[in-house]
Amino acid sequence: MLPFIRSDLDDIRAYKAHPGSTNSAPVTSTIDRLDTNENPYDLPSDIRQKLAWTYQEILENNRYPDGTHEHLKAAIAKYVSESAATNITTDNISVGNGSDEIIRSILIATCAGKEGTVLVANPTFSMYAVLAQALGIPVVTVERSLVDFSLDIAAANKAIAQTTNPPIRVVFVVHPNSPTGNALTSQELSWLRSLPEHILVVVDEAYFEFSQNTVLGELSKRPNWIVLRTFSKAFRLAAHRVGYAIGHIDAIAALEKIRLPYNIPSFSLAAALIVLQNRQQLLNVVPQILDEKAKLTQALTQQPELQFWESAANFIFVRLNPSFGLAEEQLSHIHAQLMSNGTLVRYVSGGLRITVGSPQENHRTIERLQTALKNYR
Amino acid sequence: MLPFIRSDLDDIRAYKAHPGSTNSAPVTSTIDRLDTNENPYDLPSDIRQKLAWTYQEILENNRYPDGTHEHLKAAIAKYVSESAATNITTDNISVGNGSDEIIRSILIATCAGKEGTVLVANPTFSMYAVLAQALGIPVVTVERSLVDFSLDIAAANKAIAQTTNPPIRVVFVVHPNSPTGNALTSQELSWLRSLPEHILVVVDEAYFEFSQNTVLGELSKRPNWIVLRTFSKAFRLAAHRVGYAIGHIDAIAALEKIRLPYNIPSFSLAAALIVLQNRQQLLNVVPQILDEKAKLTQALTQQPELQFWESAANFIFVRLNPSFGLAEEQLSHIHAQLMSNGTLVRYVSGGLRITVGSPQENHRTIERLQTALKNYR
Repeated sequence: MLPFIRSDLDDIRAYKAHPGSTNSAPVTSTIDRLDTNENPYDLPSDIRQKLAWTYQEILENNRYPDGTHEHLKAAIAKYVSESAATNITTDNISVGNGSDEIIRSILIATCAGKEGTVLVANPTFSMYAVLAQALGIPVVTVERSLVDFSLDIAAANKAIAQTTNPPIRVVFVVHPNSPTGNALTSQELSWLRSLPEHILVVVDEAYFEFSQNTVLGELSKRPNWIVLRTFSKAFRLAAHRVGYAIGHIDAIAALEKIRLPYNIPSFSLAAALIVLQNRQQLLNVVPQILDEKAKLTQALTQQPELQFWESAANFIFVRLNPSFGLAEEQLSHIHAQLMSNGTLVRYVSGGLRITVGSPQENHRTIERLQTALKNYR
Repeated sequence: MLPFIRSDLDDIRAYKAHPGSTNSAPVTSTIDRLDTNENPYDLPSDIRQKLAWTYQEILENNRYPDGTHEHLKAAIAKYVSESAATNITTDNISVGNGSDEIIRSILIATCAGKEGTVLVANPTFSMYAVLAQALGIPVVTVERSLVDFSLDIAAANKAIAQTTNPPIRVVFVVHPNSPTGNALTSQELSWLRSLPEHILVVVDEAYFEFSQNTVLGELSKRPNWIVLRTFSKAFRLAAHRVGYAIGHIDAIAALEKIRLPYNIPSFSLAAALIVLQNRQQLLNVVPQILDEKAKLTQALTQQPELQFWESAANFIFVRLNPSFGLAEEQLSHIHAQLMSNGTLVRYVSGGLRITVGSPQENHRTIERLQTALKNYR
């Protein structure tokens, strides 16, 4: 390693970004991409045309983007205020290059310079730990229940009491959790409410539009809570990288200090604004996706080889049923077989995380999974 | 301040991003925006149409971008290899959300966790220090000559010798420098070559296409040098936020570990690829802009109230001539008067940094500056 690079970076593995297919050539194969919890539907053609018109007629390629995000933040404030009995203003919102940039800003604002440690309960979204480690920030992990994936509150309290150098400054939870799909329970919510004000609680509601689970209503009472949302899932804008944080104005002011000043390209700002203006039309596929999830659930629970959990999001998590005596290694083979048959799912945390796709995709998922499982009967 | 926010963030001022005008409504006023060193010309309509076609026919809004950047990196490798007697491959390149994200990644890779200090020579591009301070990384500054803005090498050597806790790990220089326009001198280059291999040298060549000054040719001999380039200036893509680093494969591998996995939106990847494919057509405005710079230079040197320096970039830096007995406060009034007359320039480091615009804009710059200076005769 070069001598000017931090030696602890050796131990960090890069997050494996999957190669996209959107920026150079049309997709010619019929791969079912069910491994990143995207919405299976692209924007409808009328909204694509509006956005293309905005590009052609308004956007100035040679000018830096709006670094204040004021128009977009006003639209976000209106949207999120609808979903909660609380008045969210633009001062409560910070917009990022996906939620990833906001997670990084939160880590920098709270823990950089050896000032804090992060607590997560595994399995969960891997970027919290990946981004913390890249910054040299220690990560303490606790386990989740094998029955319902609720987090081990006793272990978490013990970790908070015993971690002192540096102390725990941030707890990250996803609501509902990825990859396991479980929403926060009332016990977990009570525990989060009990945390002292010097610990920041980040509730990542990336899947809110599918789950309708939100803690936004109590945000005004909790200056140490930040909610994350994204345009990448239900709003169908994964290509454009726009996420946002909602929180106390002082916490948001700190994130605004840390974010890159021109972090959102002009076209991405325009895309997020247009989908919010057309949100009723766009979110009308959410009930269809939930209906498809119910059908997929129904089919997968018929497979005795699989252990299955209810999901509040747009994906399903399964493991091999321990009573069938199959080893995790066999799941890796099943994952590979699905891939070679054209269905990409995520092999993670000893299970498969399967995104709910279009009816045709889900039909193929069931068929190919049944075929793969037959080898182990 | 909230108790979970790092206390040293109190002292940090946010970088003031200017409000853009590209994402919501057409520009109706006739403000000359000469404060951010943008190219005055938008993309020509044939290239805009190609990009709009790519959006309409190929881009999938609902899918994450290509996280590997392979197509774009291959095109960048071809372009930069043309300009240097060295073979740059995709393994030598990392692409960022503007150079800003890469500067942050460099700081994280080298100095995070109290492992290093940054050295800059002021006046220079402010983001190096702004991003370092946001990460809690100390910044040591040395001065530049009042005559030619070359950096004080003796002071820099002394700072490197005396800074031990933590030691200096990175030196940032811009080539040519912003806001002052001077390219690195042979003395400065010799000094950079003399630095030990445990100090990273970052040469920011944001204005390369205007200056043709580059150190790329000696990069293969210097594993501790990284060159930064951008699509925001000569290539007219400020709205799309794409910058890149060129360096040793191990240094690039470290930056790739740290960058956000889906940091570049699909449309920005497509835009950068298209401008590289059409680079001869696009860069044909560079000689025109340099010609306009010569005319602007000629007019400004006629103003005895101004102290003037030659610039190797697409902007000019002036201060008030000390022998005219004018105080810096008066420059602030001149800046405000220019703004109220419709010409935005940057008031920075006790001078005005004036971007070279279109012939009409430059004509108005000269006229308005002459009018403003008349008040002080």
